[in-house]
Amino acid sequence: MLSENVKVLQQLFSPSVLHTLDLIGIFVFAISGALLAVRKNFDVFGIAVLAEATGLGGGLFRDLVIGAVPPAAFTDLGYFVTPLLATALVFFLHPQVERIQAGVNVFDAAGLGLFCVVGTSKAYDYGLSLTASATLGLATAVGGGVLRDVLANEVPSLLRWDRDLYAVPAIVGATIVALCIRYDVVNPFTSSFAAATAFSLRLLAMRYHWRAPRAWNRRSTVREE
Amino acid sequence: MLSENVKVLQQLFSPSVLHTLDLIGIFVFAISGALLAVRKNFDVFGIAVLAEATGLGGGLFRDLVIGAVPPAAFTDLGYFVTPLLATALVFFLHPQVERIQAGVNVFDAAGLGLFCVVGTSKAYDYGLSLTASATLGLATAVGGGVLRDVLANEVPSLLRWDRDLYAVPAIVGATIVALCIRYDVVNPFTSSFAAATAFSLRLLAMRYHWRAPRAWNRRSTVREE
Amino acid sequence: MLSENVKVLQQLFSPSVLHTLDLIGIFVFAISGALLAVRKNFDVFGIAVLAEATGLGGGLFRDLVIGAVPPAAFTDLGYFVTPLLATALVFFLHPQVERIQAGVNVFDAAGLGLFCVVGTSKAYDYGLSLTASATLGLATAVGGGVLRDVLANEVPSLLRWDRDLYAVPAIVGATIVALCIRYDVVNPFTSSFAAATAFSLRLLAMRYHWRAPRAWNRRSTVREE
Repeated sequence: MLSENVKVLQQLFSPSVLHTLDLIGIFVFAISGALLAVRKNFDVFGIAVLAEATGLGGGLFRDLVIGAVPPAAFTDLGYFVTPLLATALVFFLHPQVERIQAGVNVFDAAGLGLFCVVGTSKAYDYGLSLTASATLGLATAVGGGVLRDVLANEVPSLLRWDRDLYAVPAIVGATIVALCIRYDVVNPFTSSFAAATAFSLRLLAMRYHWRAPRAWNRRSTVREE
Repeated sequence: MLSENVKVLQQLFSPSVLHTLDLIGIFVFAISGALLAVRKNFDVFGIAVLAEATGLGGGLFRDLVIGAVPPAAFTDLGYFVTPLLATALVFFLHPQVERIQAGVNVFDAAGLGLFCVVGTSKAYDYGLSLTASATLGLATAVGGGVLRDVLANEVPSLLRWDRDLYAVPAIVGATIVALCIRYDVVNPFTSSFAAATAFSLRLLAMRYHWRAPRAWNRRSTVREE
Repeated sequence: MLSENVKVLQQLFSPSVLHTLDLIGIFVFAISGALLAVRKNFDVFGIAVLAEATGLGGGLFRDLVIGAVPPAAFTDLGYFVTPLLATALVFFLHPQVERIQAGVNVFDAAGLGLFCVVGTSKAYDYGLSLTASATLGLATAVGGGVLRDVLANEVPSLLRWDRDLYAVPAIVGATIVALCIRYDVVNPFTSSFAAATAFSLRLLAMRYHWRAPRAWNRRSTVREE
């Protein structure tokens, strides 16, 4: 079921490099979960749960959907420990971490770019169609953040109109990967290009406050929130 | 594992007819998700996410539980595209769609009737007991709506006492299908009867505002919400 | 994949005893779900849904993660019926059940102790590592309560700092089981010891209002909730 081009990708894109990138992505997502937990006034275990859910939620959903059980989140000790490191960092140093929120956002953008590429590739490996793979790549990238907000009893920031574009960069990145698979040009350069494009788009969206439109002709009586 | 009577059902109840009915059900559920997203002031991507989650959530849960991975939601392109059509329709025409809310409710009732029948049959195909199949049929029918409300950070309307009966019609429909399987009388007529019964019960519940009782002897100090 | 020591555990720890304990755990968790549903003013179907979700949610998550599909919640009729009994009890007698809330809390603590032991053992049976098994044991024990609170649109009490310790007893219980497996001393006595330790720690946490710390140096401007 492993397609030839993805095999090539995996040979060139060294597993240990990919794994390190994966852990970095999990770490920065976990930081965002831990910071929300502090803002919501959760205790240290609540911080750890939210860090784990944010860091691993997207990949867990992807693995359950493609039938890769037990999911990587439960077979790789590094995946489990990384959010705990984020928890410890935020627990002791959260004022400092908040102060470098801009830096965290840059890492979060990097995680977004990476996860949409990795998620799309892994889904295609497991035999999904190109469209389904790109969709699951998007879900991998944004799933952890949605789970974070649902657990914290907030409206998912992914869905809110008053947040800078988040889904579009991931959609673009996942689509580039799917097109590369389609035209048989998957290699470390095109994969890096896809991740870098998603990363840059997200940075630009934050810098220039790009937002997506809401429905046309909203009546003035619609409740603003 | 495919039981004889369900096989017969599938031969008589042509797959293309079933598939079309399925897409109609997904479409009307997706409309209800998109309308809630507009009311919650989400942007166009939030509308699309909520439409997809509402249309496909119930079937996705069913497929994960019975081990049918990757779930139909990710293997059938039509399942993925249908909620996007609902998103486009609501995005451009939501005042008109809201005005025909009554019409949408009729389609939603049709989706409810259809999904409880399809969900029960598919679960039985995968070897679940009759009780478990009927339960999963109910979960297929109501799961998308629950996911919609959880993502939108609302109390699921399925659970609220001040909403017209929603679970009961699906329970009745799923039970009729389970009884038909039990007594070996599954055919397009009995299946249609089950779906039509659930559909009609839901219409009657909306017309006459049938509601389910709350717990006995609620103290007057209970917070009303 | 079934390890020798767990096989021994299963021979000595009679399946029918384990099953009965499991049903008791499901029952007491379902009671807590049904009581929350009454407080949230849900109708009788909302009470039943919340009772089922609370009683079965943790085990359902565990079974999906380890690939044990269809999950036990859908293959064992007793698992399905038990939360309905809890629903009936709370529906008719909830003022009395609330009055014995302290008693319910004791049973809930028993369920916590039992589920973290059963969950850890089952996950290890399915080939997960010791750390992953203990994590999944914890998730089995607390998952139902988190699902309950998410469905009821509340901040999960697991995460809140103003609740008595809940995760720690389960972590300790699951860790003891994992250590027993590691050092090959799994038997009914060590398993019971693990469950009893978690149970006692939870009782002590409630008695003395043990709480976990929040993040250090929280600024006074943080919103209290």
